[in-house]
Amino acid sequence: MSTYTAPLRDMRFVLDELAGLGEISRFPAYSEATPDIVAAILEEAASQAGDVLAPLNQPGDEIGSVLRDGRVATPPGYAEAYRQFRESAWQSLPCNPDHGGQGLPQLLAAAVNEMWHSANMAFALCPMLTESAIELLENHASPELNQLYTTKLISGEWTGAMDLTEPQAGSDLAAIKSRAVPDGDHYRISGQKIFITWGDHDLTDNIVHLVLARLPDAPPGIKGISLFLVPKHPVQEDGSPGPHNDLYPVSLEHKLGIHASPTCVMSYGDNGGAIGYLVGEEHNGVACMFTMMNHARLAVGMQGLSISERAYQQARDYARERIQGRVPDMGDRATIIHHPDVRRMLMTMKAGTEAMRALCYLTAASLDYKHHGKDEGERKTHAEMFALLTPVVKAWCTELAQELTSLGIQVHGGMGYIEETGAAQFFRDARITTIYEGTTGIQARDLVERKVLRDGGRVLQRLLGDMQDTVASLGGSNDADMNIVRSHLENGIQHLREAAEWLLANHEQDGHLPGAASYNFLMLAGTVLGGWLMARAGLAAQAKLGEEQEDAAFYRAKITSARFYAEHILTRSHYYLQTVLAGSDSMMQLEADQF
Amino acid sequence: MSTYTAPLRDMRFVLDELAGLGEISRFPAYSEATPDIVAAILEEAASQAGDVLAPLNQPGDEIGSVLRDGRVATPPGYAEAYRQFRESAWQSLPCNPDHGGQGLPQLLAAAVNEMWHSANMAFALCPMLTESAIELLENHASPELNQLYTTKLISGEWTGAMDLTEPQAGSDLAAIKSRAVPDGDHYRISGQKIFITWGDHDLTDNIVHLVLARLPDAPPGIKGISLFLVPKHPVQEDGSPGPHNDLYPVSLEHKLGIHASPTCVMSYGDNGGAIGYLVGEEHNGVACMFTMMNHARLAVGMQGLSISERAYQQARDYARERIQGRVPDMGDRATIIHHPDVRRMLMTMKAGTEAMRALCYLTAASLDYKHHGKDEGERKTHAEMFALLTPVVKAWCTELAQELTSLGIQVHGGMGYIEETGAAQFFRDARITTIYEGTTGIQARDLVERKVLRDGGRVLQRLLGDMQDTVASLGGSNDADMNIVRSHLENGIQHLREAAEWLLANHEQDGHLPGAASYNFLMLAGTVLGGWLMARAGLAAQAKLGEEQEDAAFYRAKITSARFYAEHILTRSHYYLQTVLAGSDSMMQLEADQF
Repeated sequence: MSTYTAPLRDMRFVLDELAGLGEISRFPAYSEATPDIVAAILEEAASQAGDVLAPLNQPGDEIGSVLRDGRVATPPGYAEAYRQFRESAWQSLPCNPDHGGQGLPQLLAAAVNEMWHSANMAFALCPMLTESAIELLENHASPELNQLYTTKLISGEWTGAMDLTEPQAGSDLAAIKSRAVPDGDHYRISGQKIFITWGDHDLTDNIVHLVLARLPDAPPGIKGISLFLVPKHPVQEDGSPGPHNDLYPVSLEHKLGIHASPTCVMSYGDNGGAIGYLVGEEHNGVACMFTMMNHARLAVGMQGLSISERAYQQARDYARERIQGRVPDMGDRATIIHHPDVRRMLMTMKAGTEAMRALCYLTAASLDYKHHGKDEGERKTHAEMFALLTPVVKAWCTELAQELTSLGIQVHGGMGYIEETGAAQFFRDARITTIYEGTTGIQARDLVERKVLRDGGRVLQRLLGDMQDTVASLGGSNDADMNIVRSHLENGIQHLREAAEWLLANHEQDGHLPGAASYNFLMLAGTVLGGWLMARAGLAAQAKLGEEQEDAAFYRAKITSARFYAEHILTRSHYYLQTVLAGSDSMMQLEADQF
Repeated sequence: MSTYTAPLRDMRFVLDELAGLGEISRFPAYSEATPDIVAAILEEAASQAGDVLAPLNQPGDEIGSVLRDGRVATPPGYAEAYRQFRESAWQSLPCNPDHGGQGLPQLLAAAVNEMWHSANMAFALCPMLTESAIELLENHASPELNQLYTTKLISGEWTGAMDLTEPQAGSDLAAIKSRAVPDGDHYRISGQKIFITWGDHDLTDNIVHLVLARLPDAPPGIKGISLFLVPKHPVQEDGSPGPHNDLYPVSLEHKLGIHASPTCVMSYGDNGGAIGYLVGEEHNGVACMFTMMNHARLAVGMQGLSISERAYQQARDYARERIQGRVPDMGDRATIIHHPDVRRMLMTMKAGTEAMRALCYLTAASLDYKHHGKDEGERKTHAEMFALLTPVVKAWCTELAQELTSLGIQVHGGMGYIEETGAAQFFRDARITTIYEGTTGIQARDLVERKVLRDGGRVLQRLLGDMQDTVASLGGSNDADMNIVRSHLENGIQHLREAAEWLLANHEQDGHLPGAASYNFLMLAGTVLGGWLMARAGLAAQAKLGEEQEDAAFYRAKITSARFYAEHILTRSHYYLQTVLAGSDSMMQLEADQF
């Protein structure tokens, strides 16, 4: 049985030394986030993740959610686990106190969310989508809808679902065909939606769907789509859920992974139209959806971190136990953790996961600064940073998770290919993360076109300046490991700068260029950002080693991680730059029938 | 339903223009391999692969082989498909005519095998293992055993299985515990073997197991292991299979992929010991096994090619059909094959698969030269080349297949994650190939320690010289695409040379170094070899374009592939070199409890 122990020591290191939880906790808005409360929350989440959610992960994969008599039944234990989750009020942690939230920092919520997704990614998708629904409704719904519905989502009594995709409309939301017709104070929704995660289930009495559809007078394309709140059970005058609305799950997808998470085909309006309520303005649904999507994209990027951490723990524990082969100076009873090539894999997993954690937490922290920073300048700076980092977190962390969960299998040798071992599930579960909430390709174009080219590289230049400051700090080191880190970081920054400048200089002459270069540019950005944060982690560890004797092995390991990352991951930056500079010629040369 | 069409045009291009099938077919030993026969064989294999084996692939994955009443039942249709396979005498194609083989070139057999594994990798594992068993027996078994058993394997009447692994003995065969006790003219075998591919099934009346076990007087370690032929039904005096031997499948593994291929736990000697016959000399079993293993490793490397080709076809076909999004100059009804980022993925799959095919076929051709070359010098040269290339083919092709089958999913977006689409099966099936027949780590150490360090880099230097000759040939080109190819190839060769020289200079000072650098050195070698062969393909295509007007689009696409490979895959060589040069320090720094 695969277990999970939340890496609280590593998480605290990032929270405290890199992401600035201390400063954030002192924001007036976060007066509740005292050191004691923060510590208690992390401990309690670690316990629920490890003791309640993690043991359900493998059985949930085997059994899966099923559609029975028009209703989704989740695997045994999931309803009870959700009841505990709801009673502990985890859903409300970062939410607005006006609607019953606890108003705690997004950064703290990120750390807690990391644990849910490591423990049981299929389960954690449900609160993740609810969080997105809350974000969306608080920003765009009327006070009445927020009072009736959002409060119930925040309390965890009900859950949320996002209904965007249709068979012909995946990455391209402009192709949406579902219809909404005015009917008194509400609308009647009809159409079919696919890939609706947790679109139906038996965890709660009600489910709040946020549905994109077109009004009768809608203009064509992306600017003719409106957003509706469509409850499974519309609330009656007394506030209780009424009769079943005209929406039903008609089938569940048979997926590669996240089997416990029901992925529904939802049918609307087979009996006259589902009752729905407009959220935001008419024809402005996609814009509304995008305010939520950045949040969801950060959450999916975190899944990349979480599933990698889980895969790492599994591989590390196996490598410490498994005796095989010979190692210099160790004779023939060596556990495989002593083999250099196994170490290469474990160190890649460890260093890669640490870099992801630093980047995810930093991005979550920028959300806190964005909302509660001390002045407009600070808030704006962080809002821009959050916008820039979000597609990188989403795509780079999830792409790296593919590599790391695959290494998790490889460390096990033949046992890794056996489902009972558990490593294969992480590999299968991870595979969705580069696809949903916008594929890697979509993130990459968002980064290149909206976040870099649109402002002429201004925000990126600022970030490059911050990174260069870290190189300067490293310059004073007389530590051999950190000197190696400095040298590779300096190269990486230069590669990222060169790629950006080249794109800025050339994109107007070649309409294919942003699309052709975007993936490699994004991977370059993620790789260098990871290297920057690992270098900062190494510096923080050095400082700690100067201050205290305790935990010296922990801090020394952080320096080793930083060096390994610099040597084995950051060095990819040269390759990514080369592929950006290759442009679009060879990519676009063939006719479709030459493939 | 996922289909497969053998890429005969691409295969012929590599056979004829790069691997020298024309010259090999003129070897006296291959007088049967006339152009007509070769063409007929390829056409017929393409038809059986596409029409018979490919349609069984997805249902076989869903149903899987099962253990029922102590016997393995294969999925519906597999026994009939095997009957057709046997009747067409595919198993005998490259085998020794002395035992009933057709004695055709290994190169031709490689092309045929590519089709089986693309069509149905789980099925094709069965003849693949039989081929290895034949190779082993022909080299080491007595004439009597060859007469009684090998002829039946070559005819396809029976199949072969390789019984090496035990729970405590995976990569480390020295830990084998199974026992063999002399008993008259045979031995009695007892013990448990795991991960026995096609260890039991219902396709044939008999199965020939090749089993590693220890004699009572065996010295400890790797030099105390002997090899035995253990038939499921020992042959009686009249040549017919006798009663069931004392070996049984006791369970099947529940695996990530290749579900139709039964992976058995085999129990020997629960009722007094299974009858077995010594193959080769006492205590020399592992050495015997290694003569076969190179062959099997080439075959698994070919699986990397095959499953990538299949994934490519699936992704390409989807990309040609799926309408989504907008493309410059194409409006909003573009199929996704016109999107730059989808092209990036498809071109990576196409170019990567072509490079693998060239490397696999070249390696198979070196086997033909090794056995039938015109003089001892030529035979020795190619034997050395085969030994050097085998671990690269095995590990690099299968590692690249992980990336390409994952891209195959990504091209499909959300549909890729749905099992019915078929892309996920290729991804799952591919995942075993870096593990069995020696993990990537094992191949990498074989390459570095036995094939490069042991001879001081002599054979590798010769190969680097051949590559440099190609750079010289490219120098005369005035084609823009091929100039780019030349420049990247020159860099790649230099990186490989530098890595080899650095390892040769430093490995004696650091016992961990070969293990620490081996994976990246192997990936560097494979990447550069692929680049070399793609450059040669480009040159051959240029020459063809000068000669004839026909097929111009095909040849121009080869030049584009060569350039894309150079820009997007060969450019990784710099990264691999950097990681080799990083040495073992950061990899070996942590104590086991610091992970």
